[in-house]
Amino acid sequence: MPVSHLKSLDTLVSLCKSRGFIFQSSEIYGGLSAVYDYGPLGVELKRNIQSEWWKAMTQAHDNIVGVDAAIFMHPKVWHASGHVEGFNDPMIDDKQSKKRYRADMLIEQYILKIREKGDQEKADTLQQLLDSAGTRKGLCEDLHEIIMDEKIIAPDSGAFDWTEVRQFNLMFKTHYGAVTKEDDEAIYLRPETAQGIFVNYKNVLDTARVQVPFGIAQIGKAFRNEVVARQFVFRMREFEQMEMQYFVEPGTDDGEYEKWLEARLEWHKSMGVRPENLRVSPHPEDKLAHYARAAADIQYHYPIGWQEVEGIHNRTDFDLSRHQEFSGKKMEYFDQKNQKRYIPYVIETSVGLDRTTLMILSDAYREEEVEGESRTVLKLHPKLAPVKAGVFPLIKKPELKEVAAKLDRDLRKEFTTQYDEAGSIGKRYRRQDEAGTPFCITVDFDGLEDQTVTVRHRDTMKQDRIALDQVASVLRDGIHI
Amino acid sequence: MPVSHLKSLDTLVSLCKSRGFIFQSSEIYGGLSAVYDYGPLGVELKRNIQSEWWKAMTQAHDNIVGVDAAIFMHPKVWHASGHVEGFNDPMIDDKQSKKRYRADMLIEQYILKIREKGDQEKADTLQQLLDSAGTRKGLCEDLHEIIMDEKIIAPDSGAFDWTEVRQFNLMFKTHYGAVTKEDDEAIYLRPETAQGIFVNYKNVLDTARVQVPFGIAQIGKAFRNEVVARQFVFRMREFEQMEMQYFVEPGTDDGEYEKWLEARLEWHKSMGVRPENLRVSPHPEDKLAHYARAAADIQYHYPIGWQEVEGIHNRTDFDLSRHQEFSGKKMEYFDQKNQKRYIPYVIETSVGLDRTTLMILSDAYREEEVEGESRTVLKLHPKLAPVKAGVFPLIKKPELKEVAAKLDRDLRKEFTTQYDEAGSIGKRYRRQDEAGTPFCITVDFDGLEDQTVTVRHRDTMKQDRIALDQVASVLRDGIHI
Repeated sequence: MPVSHLKSLDTLVSLCKSRGFIFQSSEIYGGLSAVYDYGPLGVELKRNIQSEWWKAMTQAHDNIVGVDAAIFMHPKVWHASGHVEGFNDPMIDDKQSKKRYRADMLIEQYILKIREKGDQEKADTLQQLLDSAGTRKGLCEDLHEIIMDEKIIAPDSGAFDWTEVRQFNLMFKTHYGAVTKEDDEAIYLRPETAQGIFVNYKNVLDTARVQVPFGIAQIGKAFRNEVVARQFVFRMREFEQMEMQYFVEPGTDDGEYEKWLEARLEWHKSMGVRPENLRVSPHPEDKLAHYARAAADIQYHYPIGWQEVEGIHNRTDFDLSRHQEFSGKKMEYFDQKNQKRYIPYVIETSVGLDRTTLMILSDAYREEEVEGESRTVLKLHPKLAPVKAGVFPLIKKPELKEVAAKLDRDLRKEFTTQYDEAGSIGKRYRRQDEAGTPFCITVDFDGLEDQTVTVRHRDTMKQDRIALDQVASVLRDGIHI
Repeated sequence: MPVSHLKSLDTLVSLCKSRGFIFQSSEIYGGLSAVYDYGPLGVELKRNIQSEWWKAMTQAHDNIVGVDAAIFMHPKVWHASGHVEGFNDPMIDDKQSKKRYRADMLIEQYILKIREKGDQEKADTLQQLLDSAGTRKGLCEDLHEIIMDEKIIAPDSGAFDWTEVRQFNLMFKTHYGAVTKEDDEAIYLRPETAQGIFVNYKNVLDTARVQVPFGIAQIGKAFRNEVVARQFVFRMREFEQMEMQYFVEPGTDDGEYEKWLEARLEWHKSMGVRPENLRVSPHPEDKLAHYARAAADIQYHYPIGWQEVEGIHNRTDFDLSRHQEFSGKKMEYFDQKNQKRYIPYVIETSVGLDRTTLMILSDAYREEEVEGESRTVLKLHPKLAPVKAGVFPLIKKPELKEVAAKLDRDLRKEFTTQYDEAGSIGKRYRRQDEAGTPFCITVDFDGLEDQTVTVRHRDTMKQDRIALDQVASVLRDGIHI
């Protein structure tokens, strides 16, 4: 059976739209860029992934608890975290088109063109200038100087009519409450969920009877006003994070970091993702974020290339120390057994729910040649499949429909199912294949007599005849493999 | 056994904080008003409620599917829905204190004082003036005139130094994308999740093989810049809605409205809420929202009084017609069987997740006198309880700890549990009572010999001795009662 995997993101985007996994946001109004809506199949898939993560991170551990902090947080949180001062991109505006560009990316693209033209020497010199931007007058000034000196034109208008380079903060800002002094009350949509955990660290310590090492897990939305947002749900302005911050004694952090990196890689495999499409990519020491002592991406081989799906970071005591400084509240932990007092180090596991969904869909996608026909099938792990079973009467006869409808009703107490009586049985199988449904149950005339049905398996396409009253237990076993 | 129910909201707020159900948001920074964070027990309770709603609304129905639309939507959506023009409160500022007040509520409080002083005649006249505000010069002008004529002073500063009355939109606004023309690109945080369903109505019709009547369900955050936000999680600026829009043929809407009102009331009862604390309160015809043909609240008897927990609305074809008008996209449904074409009417069920959580906690709260001691217990439905079982060694002996810890590990594959070895067994029971944990499993020396444990039931406080290998099935049966 000739099989091919997903070759381009466009193929998946198109399946997602036609089958109701993911739609463009506000599509009837021409769409809103870099935001997507999940459709009927997408929301079930996403909920299943989310629930597997939650169970694996909280229920399975006696020292990890959850929280759900609000998106709105006190403005001081983002001063303490460094986001107000540091979460910026250097931007430059083309006065002609009013379009805005990231200054460093503009220069990078320019260098690429020079390299393509064969002038490696010039390209290298410019690359050095770019890499050292910020060391001369200042980041904005240095970038501006390169653009001016090289007379780099705007890609869209072709004009050379630039503003200065300015820092553009990636946080969305809004005004809160009923006050007249507007500036004082600007608040931000959180650009990461992690801070919602850090500000609740003391609350959890005081109420949840935890001892270091312990973890706090959270799932929630975050928002970044990315200048270049694209590639479907891979990089969106509104996205969902699943994060766990693990609080450990300083000195044990390197070991815990390695442990979590390994554990999280295993989790992705347990979702059915093919191991050859997963890899760990440690950040080189000179590229670490200001708060990190060690960091690695878990990358997936997306149709757009190897990209981060999850980040594991040793954040040290950076965040808790900053919150101690900015809030005036002690963030120390007292280890009663060893009579030691310290601010814990934090190992962070941070995975994008949307990116995970994209990974799961990409990895499950197959086109297969079956008996001269081709089928598209999503070989999702049954526990993640949006619909666990299609339930069909073989043909539209009342006596078959009645039994199938009753079976569907019964199964719905425990499983998500889809009743379908429209079209040939082959067409109905193909529809469920595209949705990733692991089982199709068909009620036929033979079965009416001996109280049996056929179960057709998505991956092998084999059919078994089983007793009607065994269907639920067959599904149960098939899902929790 | 003398029992008392919850008497004041403060009692619950204090339990929520001390046991880790709900914390003030950004508490270490002095808090952010009208927003709360869910702690370890709260997030589990909320997730359980959410999951029960989702199953009841989607999995249990073969004609209801889910979606998950983004919080960010195209700005035109809020013009079509009427929120940009109409989602306002009339506000007035005290120039001295810079505090802002809702003009109509300011007048209402003033009338109340006059009434308390015994001048019913004047109070009635003013009430009439207030009720007819908007019919003379305009709403803002009419309210301003009353405040001026009556020389109403600011409650906080005592000053009589007011600005004009202005309409204040309750939507949070932010700027999106990297553009320089700021005003064009203002976008809003959605003030209701319903519109995310309406803009996806066509996508669902095209992909999910549904026929009228059918429903679309969604859970998600919404945001309202309420001027007077208070009463714990009852009225917050950031909150979570669980909504289902049911699309029906015009003419069948009255019947479907009644059906859903009944079904939703039953759902609340099935969550274990005492029926005497639930009631239906229909909106009088002259108080209906502009889009509604009929509407009713399902109210719960909170410690702050009877208040809406859920709204059922017949929204007619208002929303779909407006989106057809504003987007230029046809919103008609074609009924193939009867060869009819129409824009469906919509029956909406809209319940607040935070309000439901508050209801569930309020309803479950008990103080009981037990053998001379008092205990606080949350008699939560076991399916909603954040922790299903506490697992204890009777005392801190290695052989007991080992068996208890292994039992805890095994149970965690299926249930949320809490291992606890600290303090007397009585204290540990009380801790679990306050958390609403339905079962406590204790490993003792007798049990080591015959492979048994004791199960203590939260509500009756009775203890049974059962075989170690039966614990999981006892929990399973006890949760799915």
